[in-house]
Amino acid sequence: MFFHIKELQYEAKPMKPDPVFAVKLQEVLGGQYGEISVMMQYLMQGFNCRADKKYRDLLFDIGTEEIGHVEMLATMIARLLDDAPFEIQQNAYDMDPAVAAILGGTNPQHAIVGGLGAMAADAQGYPWNAKYIISSGNLLADFRANLNAESQGRLQVTRLYGMTDDPGVRDLLSFLIARDTYHQNQWYAAIKEIEEREKDIVVPSTFPRELEKQEVSHTLFNFSRGEESKKGRWAHGPSFDGHGEYKYEQPFAAGGAPILKPAPPEYHDTIAHDRNDED
Amino acid sequence: MFFHIKELQYEAKPMKPDPVFAVKLQEVLGGQYGEISVMMQYLMQGFNCRADKKYRDLLFDIGTEEIGHVEMLATMIARLLDDAPFEIQQNAYDMDPAVAAILGGTNPQHAIVGGLGAMAADAQGYPWNAKYIISSGNLLADFRANLNAESQGRLQVTRLYGMTDDPGVRDLLSFLIARDTYHQNQWYAAIKEIEEREKDIVVPSTFPRELEKQEVSHTLFNFSRGEESKKGRWAHGPSFDGHGEYKYEQPFAAGGAPILKPAPPEYHDTIAHDRNDED
Amino acid sequence: MFFHIKELQYEAKPMKPDPVFAVKLQEVLGGQYGEISVMMQYLMQGFNCRADKKYRDLLFDIGTEEIGHVEMLATMIARLLDDAPFEIQQNAYDMDPAVAAILGGTNPQHAIVGGLGAMAADAQGYPWNAKYIISSGNLLADFRANLNAESQGRLQVTRLYGMTDDPGVRDLLSFLIARDTYHQNQWYAAIKEIEEREKDIVVPSTFPRELEKQEVSHTLFNFSRGEESKKGRWAHGPSFDGHGEYKYEQPFAAGGAPILKPAPPEYHDTIAHDRNDED
Amino acid sequence: MFFHIKELQYEAKPMKPDPVFAVKLQEVLGGQYGEISVMMQYLMQGFNCRADKKYRDLLFDIGTEEIGHVEMLATMIARLLDDAPFEIQQNAYDMDPAVAAILGGTNPQHAIVGGLGAMAADAQGYPWNAKYIISSGNLLADFRANLNAESQGRLQVTRLYGMTDDPGVRDLLSFLIARDTYHQNQWYAAIKEIEEREKDIVVPSTFPRELEKQEVSHTLFNFSRGEESKKGRWAHGPSFDGHGEYKYEQPFAAGGAPILKPAPPEYHDTIAHDRNDED
Amino acid sequence: MFFHIKELQYEAKPMKPDPVFAVKLQEVLGGQYGEISVMMQYLMQGFNCRADKKYRDLLFDIGTEEIGHVEMLATMIARLLDDAPFEIQQNAYDMDPAVAAILGGTNPQHAIVGGLGAMAADAQGYPWNAKYIISSGNLLADFRANLNAESQGRLQVTRLYGMTDDPGVRDLLSFLIARDTYHQNQWYAAIKEIEEREKDIVVPSTFPRELEKQEVSHTLFNFSRGEESKKGRWAHGPSFDGHGEYKYEQPFAAGGAPILKPAPPEYHDTIAHDRNDED
Amino acid sequence: MFFHIKELQYEAKPMKPDPVFAVKLQEVLGGQYGEISVMMQYLMQGFNCRADKKYRDLLFDIGTEEIGHVEMLATMIARLLDDAPFEIQQNAYDMDPAVAAILGGTNPQHAIVGGLGAMAADAQGYPWNAKYIISSGNLLADFRANLNAESQGRLQVTRLYGMTDDPGVRDLLSFLIARDTYHQNQWYAAIKEIEEREKDIVVPSTFPRELEKQEVSHTLFNFSRGEESKKGRWAHGPSFDGHGEYKYEQPFAAGGAPILKPAPPEYHDTIAHDRNDED
Repeated sequence: MFFHIKELQYEAKPMKPDPVFAVKLQEVLGGQYGEISVMMQYLMQGFNCRADKKYRDLLFDIGTEEIGHVEMLATMIARLLDDAPFEIQQNAYDMDPAVAAILGGTNPQHAIVGGLGAMAADAQGYPWNAKYIISSGNLLADFRANLNAESQGRLQVTRLYGMTDDPGVRDLLSFLIARDTYHQNQWYAAIKEIEEREKDIVVPSTFPRELEKQEVSHTLFNFSRGEESKKGRWAHGPSFDGHGEYKYEQPFAAGGAPILKPAPPEYHDTIAHDRNDED
Repeated sequence: MFFHIKELQYEAKPMKPDPVFAVKLQEVLGGQYGEISVMMQYLMQGFNCRADKKYRDLLFDIGTEEIGHVEMLATMIARLLDDAPFEIQQNAYDMDPAVAAILGGTNPQHAIVGGLGAMAADAQGYPWNAKYIISSGNLLADFRANLNAESQGRLQVTRLYGMTDDPGVRDLLSFLIARDTYHQNQWYAAIKEIEEREKDIVVPSTFPRELEKQEVSHTLFNFSRGEESKKGRWAHGPSFDGHGEYKYEQPFAAGGAPILKPAPPEYHDTIAHDRNDED
Repeated sequence: MFFHIKELQYEAKPMKPDPVFAVKLQEVLGGQYGEISVMMQYLMQGFNCRADKKYRDLLFDIGTEEIGHVEMLATMIARLLDDAPFEIQQNAYDMDPAVAAILGGTNPQHAIVGGLGAMAADAQGYPWNAKYIISSGNLLADFRANLNAESQGRLQVTRLYGMTDDPGVRDLLSFLIARDTYHQNQWYAAIKEIEEREKDIVVPSTFPRELEKQEVSHTLFNFSRGEESKKGRWAHGPSFDGHGEYKYEQPFAAGGAPILKPAPPEYHDTIAHDRNDED
Repeated sequence: MFFHIKELQYEAKPMKPDPVFAVKLQEVLGGQYGEISVMMQYLMQGFNCRADKKYRDLLFDIGTEEIGHVEMLATMIARLLDDAPFEIQQNAYDMDPAVAAILGGTNPQHAIVGGLGAMAADAQGYPWNAKYIISSGNLLADFRANLNAESQGRLQVTRLYGMTDDPGVRDLLSFLIARDTYHQNQWYAAIKEIEEREKDIVVPSTFPRELEKQEVSHTLFNFSRGEESKKGRWAHGPSFDGHGEYKYEQPFAAGGAPILKPAPPEYHDTIAHDRNDED
Repeated sequence: MFFHIKELQYEAKPMKPDPVFAVKLQEVLGGQYGEISVMMQYLMQGFNCRADKKYRDLLFDIGTEEIGHVEMLATMIARLLDDAPFEIQQNAYDMDPAVAAILGGTNPQHAIVGGLGAMAADAQGYPWNAKYIISSGNLLADFRANLNAESQGRLQVTRLYGMTDDPGVRDLLSFLIARDTYHQNQWYAAIKEIEEREKDIVVPSTFPRELEKQEVSHTLFNFSRGEESKKGRWAHGPSFDGHGEYKYEQPFAAGGAPILKPAPPEYHDTIAHDRNDED
Repeated sequence: MFFHIKELQYEAKPMKPDPVFAVKLQEVLGGQYGEISVMMQYLMQGFNCRADKKYRDLLFDIGTEEIGHVEMLATMIARLLDDAPFEIQQNAYDMDPAVAAILGGTNPQHAIVGGLGAMAADAQGYPWNAKYIISSGNLLADFRANLNAESQGRLQVTRLYGMTDDPGVRDLLSFLIARDTYHQNQWYAAIKEIEEREKDIVVPSTFPRELEKQEVSHTLFNFSRGEESKKGRWAHGPSFDGHGEYKYEQPFAAGGAPILKPAPPEYHDTIAHDRNDED
């Protein structure tokens, strides 16, 4: 069960409005790697967690914090939209270029649909959707998803930091960047712990290795002409999973050229006229 | 530029058809973490790569291999759909329960839309879309995305392995599982290399640390009542990024309760009647 | 800012697992009118609220409660998936019809993708997306959206109530139905209050009536042959907005037949050969 | 069955082209609450209507009218795109700022994909989709959806009215606003009629009240700290459904802290190491 | 402007209900190539038509007819859902296999969301969306899209015809198949007319041929090893556009290996360590 | 199985960067009719092909070439984004109009998400999805889909050609236009071959004509008032399928006005009060 207080985790006030930056900031609110994504990903992983209580608690600690991050970003966006210059939206051909330029960078839905409110969408107005998130039941897999999300997220926020000189906006972003620093550190630590506990880096560690085609479990195939990729640690030496040696090889086709059977006539598929196939 | 040969990288023949398993196998062809996702993710990262040639080559080596994995899974699905029992699809209330049961597990679009062909969709018929993938320009971020994708992918294939007893299907899956083993190993190695080279585990390493709110860069806030999460390595000791000490603290609100300005009248927003706010 | 406690607002334990019912219950978790929708809709409306504090507080009271409803439903779904019969998923043609029948009603992604966890998706596996919600800045409009959401939501839960005889599931549903009863009552009251305060039932009340084409502001046009619709209160008597009398009329075309100009040649549109149009 | 005449229900001619306003106008053609939404929602409700003939007729009267509204908006958008300044689209860095400013506000797909035609998409180019609509079989629920749609729709059109000074565009918008005035009035009347007939405001009225957890059917829980929301009519006095008294209470957890069972091993979920749980 | 009469273009009554077939029939109502697609595609092409009046009229003749086809299919689906066996939806493990089998093939949203009504979605519950349609302004291109739509549509309906033995359903399908026969014939004729009038089969015919790289305008490159494709008319003889001779050649790379410039540092992209590139 | 070489099929270098044109070019990379669509469509049709080997080979020849087209366009877009003017993105109100104008036409995700890389999305940032493609098993239907795709695709590229004066960009576009010329020629030839072989132009040719309602197989109904469409070849003379004579007729309703049965009470649908229907 959840509770709310009106105060924000950190201040979210721009020095002055900027409807163009509001559009950009939507990316880290409602984009693929925005705060809604991490909030929903951690909460769903927490709700579904069948493993240790400490992981479950950890997921709720951070997932709950992220709801508050969504709140701060939505607040900031609403304030960046304050006083948007509505009255000047004349015919495009008659417009002052300076005004037109501003409008060109805004999202018309902020005005028409949202009435100057933040939207659960990204910088192109694409709505957040739940295929951005994963909760698989395997925590090593999911914590890697989480580490990726915090990496992409911090990357995007640092880019946004460079795109504004508003001290109020930068102040909030510096807070979010710091939290992403911790969250990368934290998922990194949790990943390390599970890798050590499971004595493997390969997900899932519980699938018997003898059931996989182990001849190709440690081989880089050179599918792109040129051998630049041969230089990496992934192409020689003992593998990080401790189960073999990395190899570098030319690819080969172990299977035949497939010939599919004709479909039954009720499907009205095109039937071959010149087949001389054996399958 | 790309070339094709008709032979498959590995054999893709089931012992006998099974339209219900074909539905499930769609997940690792066209789902969130299916082969189309890794193929498109690695190719886009390769096309966009502005970094070392060896990473670019590596992305093309694997991305090109994955096109062939898409080919094998599509072939397998088409063969699992061979001879699907079309003629028996009578009124549901008159149907033989055994037949009805089979039909209940199939995707009617395999017959109606695809004419017994594989689809670029997941196990629920949801179409593949490009929001599944990322190419950010930052390779440490992206390789973490890749490691996650291979982890979720291998997890799903091992689950599917347990859901069939067809030796032909299992043979192909054992090949794919082994390749995912390598690909996890390989992204793991590439990640290690970049982390060492950049002397940081935090993405992006190039953002000046002094610009972030460093007081909260290493703190776990206890947003979910109970202290189970305190036990992890993420809550005490030196941080993995080498920039601080992990801390465990009670959360607090550093910001105020936001009060938003009224919108200009042209937006026809509801205006407050009882505001007594100072902002 | 938000906080979490581990205890649920209400108990969420089925008497026994039922993976088929778990699929259905997904609808009210992650569907168009599920709990994620109301949670996100109320929170976004709250974050964006520029009107009276009491409305803002109300939105957070209920939006925060809804996060806990998401939690209860996700928990219930995870428990309905407990012990799902994995081992028996043989070739469809060899399967025990009783087993096949069960599998036919399940979502294979619950096993393959979610590892027996709830998903942020509906009963057909379609992911939740933010186009389900609205936050327009006009509270009368939005509270009508909210009343609709609670109406559709309660309707769906009562249907689900009839589809199960598990006392544990029914117990939770009876709680959710009661809360939807209150939430309909509550939005109803809030709507009444705003309608009275704005002295109009038409949204937005602030647009000057003289700027609309008032001749057609109270007329039902008979576009579908037959006059059954003439019998309703919407076709005669004083209008509910107090601005006119309802009328019932035959439709007529007040505009001409449009003739569009040819596109400039650079667009390579097809150009008319036999135009004799004046525009 | 439907018929068409070439004449428009109302004139749809701008004084002069304006490709930037064309983009904005797309919102009320193909957006979440645009004319395609109401057209499809009313038609689907009409096709599915199992209730009184007068409601069925009413749905077809209005649904059919809305097809003509889609026609008028598409025509207006096509005309706003007439003569779009194609030839001047040079390199962005060499462009006349005035021209660039105009292009910045246009949707490139209007030119590249549509050849100066309207699209079934919103102001951000997001395609219309059928999750915008609902047809539930319960008319009180659906008429509330309809009242909401007309409220959001009229709100958006009035905002657009303020964003243009073209008399031709304003003329069409004034017609659409008036029709939305009627449609709000009309659904309002229909809702009143059903509420009175069903002697309840709660949807569905046919679910037995004794089956819901009536202790919480009329209570506002204070989930967001602060008691501003206590002031509303929804927190005290007899409830509008006539079944109780509104109450205002502090929230409490009636359920326990959930502990989920481990998944069977075939799912390869992470298994807890330190569980000491009883469920 | 459009009008409606209550009578259907053709009868839409099944002999008896069949909720499983209702699911399948959704494909040709709300799927990629269902009736909603052709209705919306023809209407949008008609609204946007800047070419000859006869094409505009033709598009409205057929587009308007298709609204009536949507009506017939929705009606048929609603009737196939009549009396759906609600009461028997017990726990999956306790269910009669025959009942379970039926439920396995149904769409739970038909009951939960739609209350036994048709949905604007396909056989997998995926909602119709406007990216299924095209209106490009070039009629030869669009009529080819239309011919394709009628080809895929008729194919799907003939498959569905084979999947039912209900004489009422088959009667309606035989009507729809016949209309698709005409519509293919009709778009075929319209295409022929435009090809002859434009004296070219290549879209758009108005782009000057000398501006394209004509050396490769008539060549099939053998990108897939094996020369089976050499046997077709597309590989030798005069080209159908009358501008050249078909050729069959081995592919070659006319471009270099691209080396992309590093991104500016503010993007925090990974920068190459071992570049020795010139671009 | 597939292979890659680093060299491009054709050069992809702009004279100078242009982030605004990069946005537009995304349409033919990741849009509805972009290169990803044809690549995926041809490959899926090839994987699923159950017909003659020459068609299968043809599909792989072209599908494989298209992967290389995706590569060229992604490369071109990345280069058009080189050196994007990051540093100048100040507050919108303080910005140089010339700079603001440029930014107004860019996609902020190219910077924030992609770090100056191409995206698998269209000119509005909408992600590519697999509902753009079809693989039906019937090659005449699918080749018509392919001919349409190449027609729409070439149309879009010729429009883009007119929107830039960069010689490097135009050089690549002239190559792509030429390839689209061939691909239209080639699908045209393949369609002709199948039409002749199947002795019918109607898809599918294998459905017995006597099972369709042949009275309406060749009739244009005048659903839109006015007889302009009567003038076409589709309204008189022998039909192109050789099975009849085209006719032009007034539409009529052959079916009755549908009356749907009430839903069972468990659905909580609204029940009619004044039905006097017989069905």
